Amino acid sequence: MPENSTAAVAGFFLPELPRLLPYAYHPQAAQIEIASNGWVRRFLAESFATEADLLFFLRQRNGIYGPLTVPHADRQRAQDIADWYQYVTVIDSSVSDCSTLGGSAEGAVKVFTQILADFGTGMPTDGEFPYGRAGQDLWRRISPGLSQAQIGRFTASLESFLNGCTVEISAKLRDRTPDYESCMAVRLDSFGCDFIELMTEYGAEVDMTELIPELAEVHLHCRRQMTIFNDLLSWRKERAQDDKMTVVRVLTEVEGLGLQTTVDRLCVLVEEHERAYIAARERLLTGPLGSRPDVRRYLSGLDYLMGGSQEFEYLTPRYFGDGAAWDGSTSGWVDLNAAVTRFRSRP
Amino acid sequence: MPENSTAAVAGFFLPELPRLLPYAYHPQAAQIEIASNGWVRRFLAESFATEADLLFFLRQRNGIYGPLTVPHADRQRAQDIADWYQYVTVIDSSVSDCSTLGGSAEGAVKVFTQILADFGTGMPTDGEFPYGRAGQDLWRRISPGLSQAQIGRFTASLESFLNGCTVEISAKLRDRTPDYESCMAVRLDSFGCDFIELMTEYGAEVDMTELIPELAEVHLHCRRQMTIFNDLLSWRKERAQDDKMTVVRVLTEVEGLGLQTTVDRLCVLVEEHERAYIAARERLLTGPLGSRPDVRRYLSGLDYLMGGSQEFEYLTPRYFGDGAAWDGSTSGWVDLNAAVTRFRSRP
Repeated sequence: MPENSTAAVAGFFLPELPRLLPYAYHPQAAQIEIASNGWVRRFLAESFATEADLLFFLRQRNGIYGPLTVPHADRQRAQDIADWYQYVTVIDSSVSDCSTLGGSAEGAVKVFTQILADFGTGMPTDGEFPYGRAGQDLWRRISPGLSQAQIGRFTASLESFLNGCTVEISAKLRDRTPDYESCMAVRLDSFGCDFIELMTEYGAEVDMTELIPELAEVHLHCRRQMTIFNDLLSWRKERAQDDKMTVVRVLTEVEGLGLQTTVDRLCVLVEEHERAYIAARERLLTGPLGSRPDVRRYLSGLDYLMGGSQEFEYLTPRYFGDGAAWDGSTSGWVDLNAAVTRFRSRP
Repeated sequence: MPENSTAAVAGFFLPELPRLLPYAYHPQAAQIEIASNGWVRRFLAESFATEADLLFFLRQRNGIYGPLTVPHADRQRAQDIADWYQYVTVIDSSVSDCSTLGGSAEGAVKVFTQILADFGTGMPTDGEFPYGRAGQDLWRRISPGLSQAQIGRFTASLESFLNGCTVEISAKLRDRTPDYESCMAVRLDSFGCDFIELMTEYGAEVDMTELIPELAEVHLHCRRQMTIFNDLLSWRKERAQDDKMTVVRVLTEVEGLGLQTTVDRLCVLVEEHERAYIAARERLLTGPLGSRPDVRRYLSGLDYLMGGSQEFEYLTPRYFGDGAAWDGSTSGWVDLNAAVTRFRSRP
């Protein structure tokens, strides 16, 4: 019955969201995206079954997520970050695909164990393993710009992400939709929040490791705002792939709400978390930590991370279908059954 | 026999070209492209038969041609220029399509006459005519930034372009491939060289009208370098659409050269015109005109125009097939029969 109530609805209306945070494109966003596509081809082509699958991935423009989330970073760091996000998005895409990593939790764990074994070591354990070579290349480029403490967090963040991916695979294979807080806990991992924060530090050239407790509240609302907005924009794709770990499915299937009611409630939550983030960030800026230039730089980085992440999700054909071309609109009716959709003025 | 010699060859090798001129992306290239896609949807959607045709066009990324050719222009001027190039590219695409403007020279002339009648007047003659409304919008935005002399050139440049398009349609319908110099004369029109130079002035905020005779030599080599390179990169598309007005077809069909010999000869010509352009531009810079800031700004604009135009042609899926995603490579084997191609290391 809740299954049917979702299936019967062909779409939803996404209202204009407040977008209280700034966003900007890195001035070299276009070049970074192109170079990053070249990096994916060089390092990760073999992880795609065919050239067509690789092109399908590149058309999603995941290479512009980096330049959108660290718009003020040094060019090389922005490039490293762009490549990193492509790397984890290749893995994430494979997790959602039942014909590859998504087909078996045990198989995925085996691959993830090898990824982690290769990551941070001098040489890949198997030179033919594309995830290993790509991870190594990123490690070599990024870790020299991190402190010892950040390097430890770098590996741990990849592990959290892969654990989140494993839980998502299992939930899907067992056809199990979790409750809201359980879902959110997994999503914060599988969305990669740990490395997203670390990449924000890397882009801003700061080390926030010792301040993580003080940053708990800004991080909490930042993470939830990003995750909920992502689940809204990605619902067309996640639904088509039968992914269980999305708050849209939680509200419709577990809590029994209609799809539009769910969307409206999640939009309220996006705004609430955005405002709570801003309030928490203001308290930090006006408190004793607010006089530290590194803290100010990092918090500004979080602002642009949230704003840029949202911009990317409007933009990417990953969510609205292969072949979509964004025209800048940010509100309208979303058709869940169309192969390619966009924000329409009418349902 | 010459027909067959072309048809038998499935591809060619494009060598690395010297690229002696600088190129750069406008710092807001990504945003300008997206906003320009929104403009195309708003003003020109009805000139496409279906939503799928519109998306096919937007995926070609023609909206980034402007920001690549005027990388240092003011944001609004760069946006105007981006929209202008999308406008003429929509027309150009329709000219190559036998099911629309390309199907009849008389029909095209009728449409072009209406476009010109609307252009530069207070109101479109027919509010339902999308080319009229779009041209009007561009006129309203661009002409206040032009001198009276430039405004006259603006209309004349659109007329030259549409005349070139008409000749291309006729040549194709009559199955007639011209000789090299006749082809080049038409291509300089249909490539839009007059408005390309004018847009370069608009981007640089200068008026070169009175200096056009002194600029003859730089313009000559600039135009030929751009046109020949365009004909090389667009050969896969032009061949598929049976377009006659391309120097690749002239050399293979009229002069009877093999395809690879043709490509190699055209690459030599690209380099020769590039070097001749640079020499002519140096003579101007070291001569009496070289002390004028407006002349220096314009000549720098031409440098970036040529460099950026070349970058765009490597980048756009317009030439290598819908679904292509550029990885930054600029040399390799081009497969003419593949639906989507790229520069490959082997044939």
